[in-house]
Amino acid sequence: MRATKIAMKPEGRHEEKHFTAPDLIRDIVIGMSDGLTVPFALAAGLSGTVSNTNLVVVAGMAEIAAGAIAMGLGGYLAARTDREHYISELNRERQEVKEIPEQEKEEVADILREWHLPEETISSAVEAISKDSDRWLRFMMKYELGLEEPEPKRARNSSLTIGLSYIIGGIIPLSPYMFIRHSHTALIISVIVTLIALFIFGYVKGTFTGSKPVRSAWQTALVGGAAAGIAFFIAKLIS
Amino acid sequence: MRATKIAMKPEGRHEEKHFTAPDLIRDIVIGMSDGLTVPFALAAGLSGTVSNTNLVVVAGMAEIAAGAIAMGLGGYLAARTDREHYISELNRERQEVKEIPEQEKEEVADILREWHLPEETISSAVEAISKDSDRWLRFMMKYELGLEEPEPKRARNSSLTIGLSYIIGGIIPLSPYMFIRHSHTALIISVIVTLIALFIFGYVKGTFTGSKPVRSAWQTALVGGAAAGIAFFIAKLIS
Repeated sequence: MRATKIAMKPEGRHEEKHFTAPDLIRDIVIGMSDGLTVPFALAAGLSGTVSNTNLVVVAGMAEIAAGAIAMGLGGYLAARTDREHYISELNRERQEVKEIPEQEKEEVADILREWHLPEETISSAVEAISKDSDRWLRFMMKYELGLEEPEPKRARNSSLTIGLSYIIGGIIPLSPYMFIRHSHTALIISVIVTLIALFIFGYVKGTFTGSKPVRSAWQTALVGGAAAGIAFFIAKLIS
Repeated sequence: MRATKIAMKPEGRHEEKHFTAPDLIRDIVIGMSDGLTVPFALAAGLSGTVSNTNLVVVAGMAEIAAGAIAMGLGGYLAARTDREHYISELNRERQEVKEIPEQEKEEVADILREWHLPEETISSAVEAISKDSDRWLRFMMKYELGLEEPEPKRARNSSLTIGLSYIIGGIIPLSPYMFIRHSHTALIISVIVTLIALFIFGYVKGTFTGSKPVRSAWQTALVGGAAAGIAFFIAKLIS
C-alpha cells in the first residue's frame, strides 16, 4: 500500500472508544507493508526464470535498498518541502492579515457560516479570533488552508522508521533464497513464510488501525499474494 | 517517495495565490515518482552483475508489476478501509449524540474554546450547531475526530491512476535494456534517460505542488540517483 496513509485522528475525548494509532506504529506499518510485498513478489517472479537463487538474492537486495531509499529519503525530502510550504503559506497569510484585515475577517466569518451560526454570534467569534494575531493566523491556516504545523524532528524519525521497516520486511521473503540453492524449493518456503508474516502483520495492523483484524489479515495477504502471482507470470511470459 | 502524500489543501478563497494541485496530478506524481525511481535502481543494480540485459528486463517488469499492484490494489483496499472506518465512527458518534447529548455539546464547546471565544458566544454557537443533528455530527467528525467523508469513486480512480503511473514511470528506465543487449551500454543510456526524466518530472511536480521547481527537480533526481547508486553497489558487493 505504498503512498497510502492510515487514517489518523487528533486525540479525541473518548480515547477509550476512538482508537488512534501511535505515529511509530503507523510508520512501521507503512514501511513493512511494502517491504513484505514488493521484494517478495520480485523474488517469486525471478525464481520462476532462474535456477540459481544467488541472482534472486542480488535482485532482492537491490530492490530492498532502492525501495528503502525511495521511501526513506524521498519521504524525508517531501516532509521538508511540506514544512517549507507551510512556512511560505504562513508568511503569505500573515501579510494578508496585516494588509487586508477586513477581507481576512470576512473569510473567518465565511468559515463559521458553514455551521449556520447566527450572524451576531459570528461577529462576536470573528472579533475574539482576530483579537490575537497568532490565534487568527493559526485559525486561517487550519480552516482556510487545512494546514497544521509540521514537526521537523518527526519527519526525520518517521523516514528512518519507514526505511528500516521496509528493510526488515524485505529480508523476511528473501531469507529462504539465502539458504536454499534450488530456486523452486526456496520459492515454496518463501511463499509459506511470507504469507504467514503478511497474515500476522495484517492482523496486528487491523487491531491498530481500528479495522477488523481478521479481514485486515486477509486483505494484506491478498495484496502480497496477487503481487507475487502476477510478477511470477509476467516473468515467465517474457523470459 | 512511496507512502508520502503531497500537502493538499481545501479550496481557499485566494485561489490565484494559494495553489492546490488537482487530485489527478497528485496521483500521477505519487505513482510516477516511485515508478521512475525503484525499477530504475533495480535495473541499475542488476546491470552491474549480469551481462545479459534479458534478465534485467525480466526482473524490472516483475518489479513494475509488483509495485503497481502494491500501490494500486493496496491503496484501493486501504481507501475502502478508511471509508468503513469513517462510517463506523459516524455511527458511534450518532449514538453518542442521541444518548449523551449534553456531554457531546460540551465537546463542541471545548473545540470552540480553543479559539478563546466568549462563553456566551460559545453557548450560542453550540446551540446553533446542535440544532441540526446532521450538522452536529459533521462538526464532531471534522473537528473532534479530524475525519471527512471519503468518496468511494475517488478511491477507485485514484488507485488506478497511481498504478498506471507507476507502470509508465517504470517503463522509462527499463526501455534501454529492452533494445540494447550489452548491459553496460544499456545502463549508461538508462541513467541518462532516467535522470533527464526525473529532472523534468521533478520540475513539473514542483510547479504543481507550490515548491520551487528547480529545487524539486534536483531533489527528485537525487533520490533516484542515490537509490540507483546504492542498489548498484549492494548488488556488486553480494554477487
